[in-house]
Amino acid sequence: MYIMTFKVYLAGPEVFLPNAKEMLAVKADLVREAGFIPISPGDLEIPKADTRFEHGLNISAVDEKMMLEADAIIANLTPFRGVAADTGTTFELGFMCGQGKHVFAYTNVKSNHFNRLMEQCDNSALPDDTGRYRADDGIAIENCDMIDNLMLHGGVIRRGGSVVVGDAPADEIYTDLRAFKECLALAKKKLLATD
Amino acid sequence: MYIMTFKVYLAGPEVFLPNAKEMLAVKADLVREAGFIPISPGDLEIPKADTRFEHGLNISAVDEKMMLEADAIIANLTPFRGVAADTGTTFELGFMCGQGKHVFAYTNVKSNHFNRLMEQCDNSALPDDTGRYRADDGIAIENCDMIDNLMLHGGVIRRGGSVVVGDAPADEIYTDLRAFKECLALAKKKLLATD
Repeated sequence: MYIMTFKVYLAGPEVFLPNAKEMLAVKADLVREAGFIPISPGDLEIPKADTRFEHGLNISAVDEKMMLEADAIIANLTPFRGVAADTGTTFELGFMCGQGKHVFAYTNVKSNHFNRLMEQCDNSALPDDTGRYRADDGIAIENCDMIDNLMLHGGVIRRGGSVVVGDAPADEIYTDLRAFKECLALAKKKLLATD
Repeated sequence: MYIMTFKVYLAGPEVFLPNAKEMLAVKADLVREAGFIPISPGDLEIPKADTRFEHGLNISAVDEKMMLEADAIIANLTPFRGVAADTGTTFELGFMCGQGKHVFAYTNVKSNHFNRLMEQCDNSALPDDTGRYRADDGIAIENCDMIDNLMLHGGVIRRGGSVVVGDAPADEIYTDLRAFKECLALAKKKLLATD
């Protein structure tokens, strides 16, 4: 069956967690159970480097190579270290969109982009003359009923991918896998239809 | 001269500024002076939509179309609404890397990714057994002497692009154009060599 050769790249902030290896192993197992081949950062040995900067370049090279080999990405866009998704993950989602691969995303935070930004500015933003919300500093707040910047959510939806919104308890937003499982099931449905 | 037909996509959080139009116009003028054709979000009419969500999809479609037409991107990775770059911009940088286009980036904040993350956790992060810095919550902090997540900085450098680090006054980090000008000059040098 052709689908058994589909490779799914797992993007997300899991790589930074204290239990990164376990988290990625569990996600990889779920991908295998769904009938795909998982690929994720951390799977490959990073070549030794003389400097921190070169070490960063080497990881970038390895991760990009994995994405080139992958047929699809499932991006964890749960807000990380602030109001928005991890920038490494958003880069990778863009990369896979640019490559024309299958793209899927999820978040474990129910509050959408607009509501999180409103919370960040203490709900001080008001609509301007054109109806666009702006905070006290004049900076506009996107109001598109999307989970993050419209390029991310829009890029996935416009390619026929799914964006799953979970609602994990505050202390489990990086470990709860319910939204990931739902996203994986939707990915399987789409990839089978493509098959 | 072939270079005159090079189209440069201007990515950055400028679209959210109160003076977005003026900022993008000034950047576009500088790109024209350098001999290229500027393209930036806001240049094209966004088709009317019935819902906020569809409006978001329409902007995503227009911006992606502009990137497909562009030969290069200059991404403004100045931290936005927190510790990292605007996620729309990082998606776009990834998209252009995935498309195999010329990529350039800059920031107006001198403090690098590691130092900003250390500041965010009140310098509480310490090296673990493997030498990797981790904050109190166990979350790892990248230490690659880069301006943001290594996929961004690494993706640009590995393609022979430039990453320019500016040092704008705190109240001018979204309007100071010195780093942009330097980045544009380096882009010109590279694109002329490619020509």
